[in-house]
Amino acid sequence: MECADYGLTRKLERDNLNLNPLQRGGVLPAAARKALHEFGDGYSVCDYCDGRLDQVTRPAINCFLDDLADFTGSDAVRTVHGAREGKFAVMHALCERGDTVVVDGNAHYTTHLAAERNGLEIVEVPSTGHPSYEVTPEAYREVLEETIDRVEVKLAVLTHVDGNYGNLTDARGVADVCRKLGVPLLLNCAYSMGRLPVNLRELGVDFVVGSGHKSMAASGPIGVLGMKSEWEDTVLRRSGRHEKKELELLGCTSRGAPLATLMASLPYVRERVSRWDGEVKKTRYLVSELEDIGGIEQLGVRPKEHDLVRFETPVFHEIAASHPRKGFFLYEELKKRGIVGIRRGQTKWFKCSIYGMTEEQVQYVVDSFRDIVEENR
Amino acid sequence: MECADYGLTRKLERDNLNLNPLQRGGVLPAAARKALHEFGDGYSVCDYCDGRLDQVTRPAINCFLDDLADFTGSDAVRTVHGAREGKFAVMHALCERGDTVVVDGNAHYTTHLAAERNGLEIVEVPSTGHPSYEVTPEAYREVLEETIDRVEVKLAVLTHVDGNYGNLTDARGVADVCRKLGVPLLLNCAYSMGRLPVNLRELGVDFVVGSGHKSMAASGPIGVLGMKSEWEDTVLRRSGRHEKKELELLGCTSRGAPLATLMASLPYVRERVSRWDGEVKKTRYLVSELEDIGGIEQLGVRPKEHDLVRFETPVFHEIAASHPRKGFFLYEELKKRGIVGIRRGQTKWFKCSIYGMTEEQVQYVVDSFRDIVEENR
Repeated sequence: MECADYGLTRKLERDNLNLNPLQRGGVLPAAARKALHEFGDGYSVCDYCDGRLDQVTRPAINCFLDDLADFTGSDAVRTVHGAREGKFAVMHALCERGDTVVVDGNAHYTTHLAAERNGLEIVEVPSTGHPSYEVTPEAYREVLEETIDRVEVKLAVLTHVDGNYGNLTDARGVADVCRKLGVPLLLNCAYSMGRLPVNLRELGVDFVVGSGHKSMAASGPIGVLGMKSEWEDTVLRRSGRHEKKELELLGCTSRGAPLATLMASLPYVRERVSRWDGEVKKTRYLVSELEDIGGIEQLGVRPKEHDLVRFETPVFHEIAASHPRKGFFLYEELKKRGIVGIRRGQTKWFKCSIYGMTEEQVQYVVDSFRDIVEENR
Repeated sequence: MECADYGLTRKLERDNLNLNPLQRGGVLPAAARKALHEFGDGYSVCDYCDGRLDQVTRPAINCFLDDLADFTGSDAVRTVHGAREGKFAVMHALCERGDTVVVDGNAHYTTHLAAERNGLEIVEVPSTGHPSYEVTPEAYREVLEETIDRVEVKLAVLTHVDGNYGNLTDARGVADVCRKLGVPLLLNCAYSMGRLPVNLRELGVDFVVGSGHKSMAASGPIGVLGMKSEWEDTVLRRSGRHEKKELELLGCTSRGAPLATLMASLPYVRERVSRWDGEVKKTRYLVSELEDIGGIEQLGVRPKEHDLVRFETPVFHEIAASHPRKGFFLYEELKKRGIVGIRRGQTKWFKCSIYGMTEEQVQYVVDSFRDIVEENR
């Protein structure tokens, strides 16, 4: 054993203002911290299992899944290990090796991996490119129609909010296109479900996947897979040999603390989703204030409709060129001010989010960036 | 929201002596409880990720995996979501739909599900049946030879310790058979890795899978997948499009608290494995004392070589027939004495484990069963 101390502390990231978009939506509220304590041990949710995780009544996983179906507007819902595992399961259930799926040009890498692991061909709907990188229903229609002309398309995937630009796509518009063309649509809501309202029925999609650790205030890894009733027999089909067990879930998925925290957080998540407009307003304020500094520009669709923002930051790149600490200055200046989450050494651009921060905290972040530019330019 | 209170407490199961074998090996030591607190939030192990979970240095996941490879005698090791997900990944990487795998007759249902989800045919090596249910290398050789005569066998699976009888199989013996016949062998160590010594190299197997929540003092869900170097290119092959990402893992697997707890627990687990002989001795004492009561008989191979014990208990079934509380009496009598983990209403037989209990606790369990028989017979 070379290094028994693995540095298992996260004090810096927990005690400071963390701008990493990946970390903003997964912070546990007090009720989930308590659940983490209660259900920290091993197979903690399995004490009273009769063979089906989704039917466990102590704790009331069955009731929770009813509420989660209601929350997501799904007919049936299951927990999975994460959004990626949900996408893989749907593709695995609907497609065979060599089949074709259509995905948007802002898809997360895990959408590509889920397809590749299933041996599927990927056809991409391009975004509009720099600077807005928008994926439109019209572009989706064009690619889908072209593709259908030459091959059957088993599934379409749309990224509800992408992780590069934080663009919120017109899911209902793309769902209309897909429905008319007879192609089922999976909406990847890793950056939306748990932050903003997501309703499968209202959007008219066939599947939604969400991420507990990314956007639903849960311990990782856990995801949500919701579907229309017509897909239950396919995606939740049972084992031939073990008739209770759902095959695509390998029987059970999240057996422990991540599920307990997701359950404990649902009331909190439901409430915060109702305050989404306030989050968008705060983000637009951040963009407006940072762009006002000069040498900072928001990429992606304007005005922002999500908290994840990508900025091009030539002002920081210019400072880095002559700063004694070179590209490290920005990370270090922020850290001095109790702000973390911008990658060390990166100055040309960065992604950030102030999701869940108070107005005072947002103002502090804005003032800090302004000070750093003024002191170093 | 019909039932916002999901009964998220586990006081009864945490504060009492829990005989459920599923729960004995997943209890967190203090260091893991601390890690749970530090890494409870969402994507907590991903602050300093450069695209590969297994290469993260803060916390030192890379060092941990080196230590885990050493601990399991593997050339390469990765964390997965559980033993079942490890089995699925290996089958998915090695086999194609319609291929055949050979598995032992005491295999966990998830071995069957992993094969079925991959579209594989299963050929079973029968156990010797009642009362010892033993799977021998000789039986394995017979079935494997017969099967190879008619079809290519892509993978053999052996359950190191099964969950029904707690039989420890002769993994080295079966590995010899498989090696001579040119069939790679996966050893399912969900009930062994973290309890007793497991060394891939010494046993001569190709793959080992383990379970963090079942036997390695970690929060669920997390598993371990170890392999010989010759399988790395197949099982850990990279994505064509995202060259850093390992396809069978969909990029990353356990992104959060379960991994942090597994890391924190490794030194503790390594130490407890060295005391395995003492655990076997305690279990044999339990068997001897309970059988001495009369009307209680251990199933599975004798003498016990694992803490999981299945008893046939006609004495309790007879009491239930005339007891005012019928079959519930045993659960209730145990609960009165602070003992849980035997299924409510079950009296014909039960599985139990006293793994990790002190000698005083074991004596208390023995005395409690004796008292219950004496007071009710």
